Amino acid sequence: MQDTSKGKFITLEGGEGSGKSTVIAALEQWLQEDGFKVLKTREPGGIPIAEKIRSLVLDPEYSEMDARTEALLYAAARRQHLVERVFPALAEGAVVLCDRFVDSSLAYQGAARGLGIDEVAAVNEFAIEGRMPDLTLLLDVDPEEGIARIQRAEEREWNRLDNEAARFHTRVHEAYMTLAEKYPARIKKIDAEKPLEEVIKDCTEKVQAYLNVKS
Amino acid sequence: MQDTSKGKFITLEGGEGSGKSTVIAALEQWLQEDGFKVLKTREPGGIPIAEKIRSLVLDPEYSEMDARTEALLYAAARRQHLVERVFPALAEGAVVLCDRFVDSSLAYQGAARGLGIDEVAAVNEFAIEGRMPDLTLLLDVDPEEGIARIQRAEEREWNRLDNEAARFHTRVHEAYMTLAEKYPARIKKIDAEKPLEEVIKDCTEKVQAYLNVKS
Ligand SMILES: Nc1ncnc2c1ncn2[C@@H]1O[C@H](COP(=O)(O)OP(=O)(O)O)[C@@H](O)[C@H]1O
Ligand SMILES: Nc1ncnc2c1ncn2[C@@H]1O[C@H](COP(=O)(O)OP(=O)(O)O)[C@@H](O)[C@H]1O
Ligand SMILES: [Mg+2]
Ligand SMILES: [Mg+2]
Repeated sequence: MQDTSKGKFITLEGGEGSGKSTVIAALEQWLQEDGFKVLKTREPGGIPIAEKIRSLVLDPEYSEMDARTEALLYAAARRQHLVERVFPALAEGAVVLCDRFVDSSLAYQGAARGLGIDEVAAVNEFAIEGRMPDLTLLLDVDPEEGIARIQRAEEREWNRLDNEAARFHTRVHEAYMTLAEKYPARIKKIDAEKPLEEVIKDCTEKVQAYLNVKS
Repeated sequence: MQDTSKGKFITLEGGEGSGKSTVIAALEQWLQEDGFKVLKTREPGGIPIAEKIRSLVLDPEYSEMDARTEALLYAAARRQHLVERVFPALAEGAVVLCDRFVDSSLAYQGAARGLGIDEVAAVNEFAIEGRMPDLTLLLDVDPEEGIARIQRAEEREWNRLDNEAARFHTRVHEAYMTLAEKYPARIKKIDAEKPLEEVIKDCTEKVQAYLNVKS
């Protein structure tokens, strides 16, 4: 494994509609203007095998896919995305901004789908080979408000996860809160019910503090 | 998870050309004649998602696939094959004869590819949810003799594993021997350099002893 300690690995987490995509774009622009080498990405990130794996997971033809099979496939896609895209960028000293990462698996598969956080963590440890994010911004929004935002926004492709009920999203939210308590040094909770500009400002400040740069 | 304790889960292990396919066919016939309900299978076993996953692993287009990605994909295919085929048969009290299982992953990915036996075991524990085989017949043959047998036999589809060198097969063999020492109650080593009829007789005796039936 290459030396990935030079780069900074920052992940964005939170339920659907919490603002991850919006915030990450703002962070990318700000960091680039500040002269940082930045990689903004998300799984599967255009990595051919990882894309193929994800398309298997989301294919409605396989609706009888077992939850553990699904978790293993997500971990496989994650691994290849890390190896082909994230690790090389970190090795070059870039700031990597990743939209969702292990905490999503822990919250969705581990907690909400009931596979167990520790068990899903074990599989993901194998996939990430110890390279946890350096900083995670957790966008905290009431799950119903998040879904309402999505519905207001543009249409997007149907996927199986959209079938899940509101109770599911509440379990996801609770799991995220548990993770934030368990890893307070890494996971910074952001009140994402504030107006967007304030959310972006709060996130920027956390990143600034972590990177130790002036605004 | 269904109750799979009624059935008997028997796996066949050993290097390529050690005689697994030949022996398992003989065991199936003998058990059926003895009145047992038998499922003879191998991964991915005609399970649509599992077949798709395996075809990804073996696709030469993805020759840059990371070894951990590959191990996770094998575990995903294993999981789905278990859930759709093996667990239901065990729940009905069948004898399941499976050509290769977790020990193959431990020997090939864990030891020979260097990922570590314990780490690959952790991923597989997630996939199999504790349902280890009840009995494993390990066909022990000198790796070079095994490969020579294969070459003598009929042509078969090219796959990436065939590219691996003889040193690789020696590491696989050593790992199998280590596993047999570690799990002597479950793994029965069979001298598979003997003539085929004797190998089949030795395997049959082990299965008889385990099932506690007369010949
Ligand atoms: N703080 C906010 N207040 C109001 N609307 C927001 C806020 N953050 C994001 N949105 C809107 O909610 C929708 C979903 O945002 P998005 O960034 O796509 O969320 P995610 O990527 O977390 O699913 C978008 O239409 C976005 O403009
Ligand atoms: N004990 C044996 N002695 C000689 N040849 C054998 C023996 N066992 C198997 N073979 C032959 O070796 C070849 C590979 O056997 P096979 O059962 O396909 O092995 P595997 O499934 O373990 O790769 C076949 O041609 C088979 O007939
Ligand atoms: Mg988004
Ligand atoms: Mg065979």
